[in-house]
Amino acid sequence: MKRAEVTELVLSAKRLKGLTWKQIHEKIAVSTSPIVVTAALLGQMRLEPGEAAKAAELFDLPKEAEILLTEIPYRGSLPQVPPTDPLIYRFYELIQVYGTTWKELIQEEFGDGIMSAIDFDMTMERQPDQKGDRVKFAMSGKFLSYKRY
Amino acid sequence: MKRAEVTELVLSAKRLKGLTWKQIHEKIAVSTSPIVVTAALLGQMRLEPGEAAKAAELFDLPKEAEILLTEIPYRGSLPQVPPTDPLIYRFYELIQVYGTTWKELIQEEFGDGIMSAIDFDMTMERQPDQKGDRVKFAMSGKFLSYKRY
Amino acid sequence: MKRAEVTELVLSAKRLKGLTWKQIHEKIAVSTSPIVVTAALLGQMRLEPGEAAKAAELFDLPKEAEILLTEIPYRGSLPQVPPTDPLIYRFYELIQVYGTTWKELIQEEFGDGIMSAIDFDMTMERQPDQKGDRVKFAMSGKFLSYKRY
Amino acid sequence: MKRAEVTELVLSAKRLKGLTWKQIHEKIAVSTSPIVVTAALLGQMRLEPGEAAKAAELFDLPKEAEILLTEIPYRGSLPQVPPTDPLIYRFYELIQVYGTTWKELIQEEFGDGIMSAIDFDMTMERQPDQKGDRVKFAMSGKFLSYKRY
Amino acid sequence: MKRAEVTELVLSAKRLKGLTWKQIHEKIAVSTSPIVVTAALLGQMRLEPGEAAKAAELFDLPKEAEILLTEIPYRGSLPQVPPTDPLIYRFYELIQVYGTTWKELIQEEFGDGIMSAIDFDMTMERQPDQKGDRVKFAMSGKFLSYKRY
Amino acid sequence: MKRAEVTELVLSAKRLKGLTWKQIHEKIAVSTSPIVVTAALLGQMRLEPGEAAKAAELFDLPKEAEILLTEIPYRGSLPQVPPTDPLIYRFYELIQVYGTTWKELIQEEFGDGIMSAIDFDMTMERQPDQKGDRVKFAMSGKFLSYKRY
Amino acid sequence: MKRAEVTELVLSAKRLKGLTWKQIHEKIAVSTSPIVVTAALLGQMRLEPGEAAKAAELFDLPKEAEILLTEIPYRGSLPQVPPTDPLIYRFYELIQVYGTTWKELIQEEFGDGIMSAIDFDMTMERQPDQKGDRVKFAMSGKFLSYKRY
Amino acid sequence: MKRAEVTELVLSAKRLKGLTWKQIHEKIAVSTSPIVVTAALLGQMRLEPGEAAKAAELFDLPKEAEILLTEIPYRGSLPQVPPTDPLIYRFYELIQVYGTTWKELIQEEFGDGIMSAIDFDMTMERQPDQKGDRVKFAMSGKFLSYKRY
Amino acid sequence: MKRAEVTELVLSAKRLKGLTWKQIHEKIAVSTSPIVVTAALLGQMRLEPGEAAKAAELFDLPKEAEILLTEIPYRGSLPQVPPTDPLIYRFYELIQVYGTTWKELIQEEFGDGIMSAIDFDMTMERQPDQKGDRVKFAMSGKFLSYKRY
Amino acid sequence: MKRAEVTELVLSAKRLKGLTWKQIHEKIAVSTSPIVVTAALLGQMRLEPGEAAKAAELFDLPKEAEILLTEIPYRGSLPQVPPTDPLIYRFYELIQVYGTTWKELIQEEFGDGIMSAIDFDMTMERQPDQKGDRVKFAMSGKFLSYKRY
Repeated sequence: MKRAEVTELVLSAKRLKGLTWKQIHEKIAVSTSPIVVTAALLGQMRLEPGEAAKAAELFDLPKEAEILLTEIPYRGSLPQVPPTDPLIYRFYELIQVYGTTWKELIQEEFGDGIMSAIDFDMTMERQPDQKGDRVKFAMSGKFLSYKRY
Repeated sequence: MKRAEVTELVLSAKRLKGLTWKQIHEKIAVSTSPIVVTAALLGQMRLEPGEAAKAAELFDLPKEAEILLTEIPYRGSLPQVPPTDPLIYRFYELIQVYGTTWKELIQEEFGDGIMSAIDFDMTMERQPDQKGDRVKFAMSGKFLSYKRY
Repeated sequence: MKRAEVTELVLSAKRLKGLTWKQIHEKIAVSTSPIVVTAALLGQMRLEPGEAAKAAELFDLPKEAEILLTEIPYRGSLPQVPPTDPLIYRFYELIQVYGTTWKELIQEEFGDGIMSAIDFDMTMERQPDQKGDRVKFAMSGKFLSYKRY
Repeated sequence: MKRAEVTELVLSAKRLKGLTWKQIHEKIAVSTSPIVVTAALLGQMRLEPGEAAKAAELFDLPKEAEILLTEIPYRGSLPQVPPTDPLIYRFYELIQVYGTTWKELIQEEFGDGIMSAIDFDMTMERQPDQKGDRVKFAMSGKFLSYKRY
Repeated sequence: MKRAEVTELVLSAKRLKGLTWKQIHEKIAVSTSPIVVTAALLGQMRLEPGEAAKAAELFDLPKEAEILLTEIPYRGSLPQVPPTDPLIYRFYELIQVYGTTWKELIQEEFGDGIMSAIDFDMTMERQPDQKGDRVKFAMSGKFLSYKRY
Repeated sequence: MKRAEVTELVLSAKRLKGLTWKQIHEKIAVSTSPIVVTAALLGQMRLEPGEAAKAAELFDLPKEAEILLTEIPYRGSLPQVPPTDPLIYRFYELIQVYGTTWKELIQEEFGDGIMSAIDFDMTMERQPDQKGDRVKFAMSGKFLSYKRY
Repeated sequence: MKRAEVTELVLSAKRLKGLTWKQIHEKIAVSTSPIVVTAALLGQMRLEPGEAAKAAELFDLPKEAEILLTEIPYRGSLPQVPPTDPLIYRFYELIQVYGTTWKELIQEEFGDGIMSAIDFDMTMERQPDQKGDRVKFAMSGKFLSYKRY
Repeated sequence: MKRAEVTELVLSAKRLKGLTWKQIHEKIAVSTSPIVVTAALLGQMRLEPGEAAKAAELFDLPKEAEILLTEIPYRGSLPQVPPTDPLIYRFYELIQVYGTTWKELIQEEFGDGIMSAIDFDMTMERQPDQKGDRVKFAMSGKFLSYKRY
Repeated sequence: MKRAEVTELVLSAKRLKGLTWKQIHEKIAVSTSPIVVTAALLGQMRLEPGEAAKAAELFDLPKEAEILLTEIPYRGSLPQVPPTDPLIYRFYELIQVYGTTWKELIQEEFGDGIMSAIDFDMTMERQPDQKGDRVKFAMSGKFLSYKRY
Repeated sequence: MKRAEVTELVLSAKRLKGLTWKQIHEKIAVSTSPIVVTAALLGQMRLEPGEAAKAAELFDLPKEAEILLTEIPYRGSLPQVPPTDPLIYRFYELIQVYGTTWKELIQEEFGDGIMSAIDFDMTMERQPDQKGDRVKFAMSGKFLSYKRY
């Protein structure tokens, strides 16, 4: 069984049971954020064993699928790059347009290094706005300096 | 004269005068945020005429360069994709790992559509943290629904 | 079940029942245009639940396929880029030849921004012509200005 | 002298003289539409000799540049594909999302063939709209049937 | 059923019955040339309904396959580009070496436009030659001028 | 001096002197066909020394350019593949659509091997036609069998 | 049945019967060299009917597989290019490093043309050597001159 | 000064002095084979200091060019892959067609490992043949076994 | 049966039996290091027959899978390049940043040649560290000089 | 001035003065390792101001180059990927062959996370060996766990 097959089983059960990601998070998560739970069920992160057991029950998954949800996956969620889906493409466009700007400003503030994509968290929320609601992302990643030995 | 040559003139003058992007923003911007001013000087956004005039004075730019800074550029700042620079790559990695998750969660909350990369703003700040300071990004884009005619 | 499988089921039923897209649109659509209905059945847009129910009846689709037709798909309809099919390639060629021209003229008229591909509609019709009939496309997309915060 | 150098000369003169494409078209065109004149000056179409002579005068071009403007160029205006510029990308996205739909609908209406990108014309105009003005494109291309010998 | 599956059924039956393309063309074609019949059976062109019926009988194809042979396919016959097969690569090499030459000579003779790949026919024959027989291709395509509106 | 610079010198002189490829061929060629002379001047074939000397005189080329015209070039005339120029793309499209058909028919007639792109000649002519003149290509290449040792 | 499936059947039978390519060549070949027999069984060349019959018996292949072995395959044996397998990559590296050298030396000796990859044979043998045995390849291909018509 | 500029200086001098690679090898080489000398002058290998001194004299190279010829270059001689030049492509085609065959046969004879492209030599010669002379390549590379620690 | 299927059988059994790579190495290896055993079970190296027999018993593999584990695989373990998985990407990033540095320093110390990736071994261990444990890799490959014949 | 031009100035001066990287490191470095100093001079890392001043003196660099050496570069040292240079390719090959193995073993030992390429150091030394000296690399990177918020 491959991780991609687990994702397909999850999506099929979610669809037929009419569940939302919010409900799934509430039923499954012990200490994991909604973004990480969703990413794990889409094959990009891992769940804690207790969470995987609840997921297996919720989605009627076989034992191997339950174990697979606790394993670290081979990450990479996009079938092509640049992404063809318009919603995901917009994030890619932001890197194309602002990538060198982010590099300049982060390095002016922090020196030589990177923002971690590993020690990283993020929240997403709706920001009501008269001219049309907005998607608000807050991302925070530890700054890691290039070490010099 | 090409826009890329303006960028090179700006970076050379910035370097020899020892300016920071923060100082440049203070000297140039009328109503434009630091991120947009930096992006404009790196060839990805445009400046208002008054800002371009100040930039031309600050960096000793010829007239054509000043006009070019007010023109809408052909956008795209990265010499290769995926980006080879580690700082910029981490943003690309976030899309690889979380792209489908963002799609699911945004669409569950907002319905079918995208987060605009045009009606979009963002701030970047240092978040002090005992275990190591963090880079905090807050992004906010208008949600645009797929219209059905 | 994957969205691509739904598309295959739809095309197979359409073929064996001898239906045209025009007929399908008449039998299925509540408020959706022929272009969007066709795009949805080809896996690129979603149908309203009532439309999906009619589609499921018309094409003898299983329940999961019906639900899938109401879900927002991962968009991108082309197996390769540039497209190898001559009809689709001609549109790609138009972008190659006229892309920078459209950019210049739209931006001269509207300023810095884009024509939305989300708040967008289009019609296609036959334009009789003595020298050979013509395909007429009318496209209209909301202009979105780059916001400056 | 290469065609790309002519384009750069034209853009530089346009910038320093503060001309718009609309003004340029009025001063240069004999029988050619604004879209084709702009495309020609951007290196994608050719001008009639009389038009090229006027362009050479308007932009102070050398003789070889004037001749080059009457030559058929090696077409293709985009530095990368998919295009990184957001305005041009949106057209590419339309092909990704609607390409197979256009193929189905055109072929249902016209039979096996293509819409010509050669015997082709197009207009672009502003469509006032309370919720925000819209870009309106009307394209019309001769339908060419696959001949069977 | 996908068009590629029809191609595989045809090739399998052709192989087991020991048929040649020449024989197949004689048994199937009403008014279609050998090149078009072969291309249709390889999934690149469509057959007339009467031809498809004969093909279905000859190759014992199911009803859906017969209908598929009359549908316009998504064209593009090569699994990779540049083609890895030596015979097909030689044609690709001709474009690499002579492409710009053809462009110059056709345009000097005909003006600005293209040779149609749609209103196009071609024959292939053996040309006996003492130093080794030769493959002779004669191709003829309608010249289409760029229209100027 | 590089071969591409010779091509640029030739095209510039041709343009300023108002020469056609037909005239150039008449003035230069000793025993070489128009297609090969044109290809050589575009950097894809070589000229005989006597032809190169005439070319050098006709185009006022320096000595090194004259020698370069007699050298075998590194072949490949297209700046990108697939070609973005519409005229050249149509040939590429023919390979996409008919490539596997040519393979089947040539191999049915000749057995296992290829049509040479080296021992190869071709002519191009105008074929008058009431419905619009046609471009006629006749290509002939020696068939080379796979040898079995 | 596809040619790739025949290759898989052959490799599976070879593995379970513990055969070497040398033994297979001895049992199957009538007049074909070991390299060509191996290449044919790997889907890149064809066998003579008598050889295919013996191969079918040796590997318990069905009738269609036997016929497929006598058909000319769509050639190209590598799943990716550049090849990821270290042994095959070394040959690719030789082209990267020595490709232009071979071109210069072959053309200095033979004039304008190519070494045929069709009228071509090759042998591979072990060359004992105290410092470690060596792989010795001898390749010989007919020189084909560019013909000038 | 870059290595590519040295190659251009060498080729220009070779051309204007009418030298062949054979003559160059005779004048320059102390202990290096013709293939390696040619590869070095084309920027892929290095010369011994004494050889570089002779090369500098023969081609009137500046001191930095002479030193560069003794440096180890960044190897890779092809402007694109797959190579567009027909002569070099034929070698690439051999890997496409015979790559997996070479892997099978070398590994059956030698076990798990590779043929070195570093401890490697090769000769090229003309093989007279009534049906047309042949290019004969003999390559010999040390076999390197995968070590198991 | 393909090698990739063996890998999937192994991973599935490992998962359901709750084994670690360390335990697997202890149960299977005769003389092979943990890195090579793991690589072999992931389809990149081969096992000795005795080791394959133990692996077959441990994982309940069929006979053909056992033989496949002793065969030399077609190597290359990454589904895309650059790798999308963050852990593996970091190694790729090291080559991007330090590749030319390694080349300079190795060649300054050893002369012209390469570090073998065939006669190569490596160990990986945990290096305790107060600021966070470190991954320590020690790699050692035989230096191979370019031979000059 | 671009960073790539600084690298070229450094390499040219190093060449003409006959310096080694070891000597350069001794003359320039205050607290930076040889690998980082070399990487900085090749445009991949930055120097401390004092080091840059010494480098400017040693290599006769202009002031802007000295400043550029202290700036954080846009990293990425390879002109193509996969790298064509044999020495650098071998490292790439190691990732192809062992990438998934490293992932399995590091994650079994450390859990979900990555080895940092930022908080990272490395040494390279010669390991004498009777069968041929070896290149020994020791790499050590901080392990970073995926944080769960």
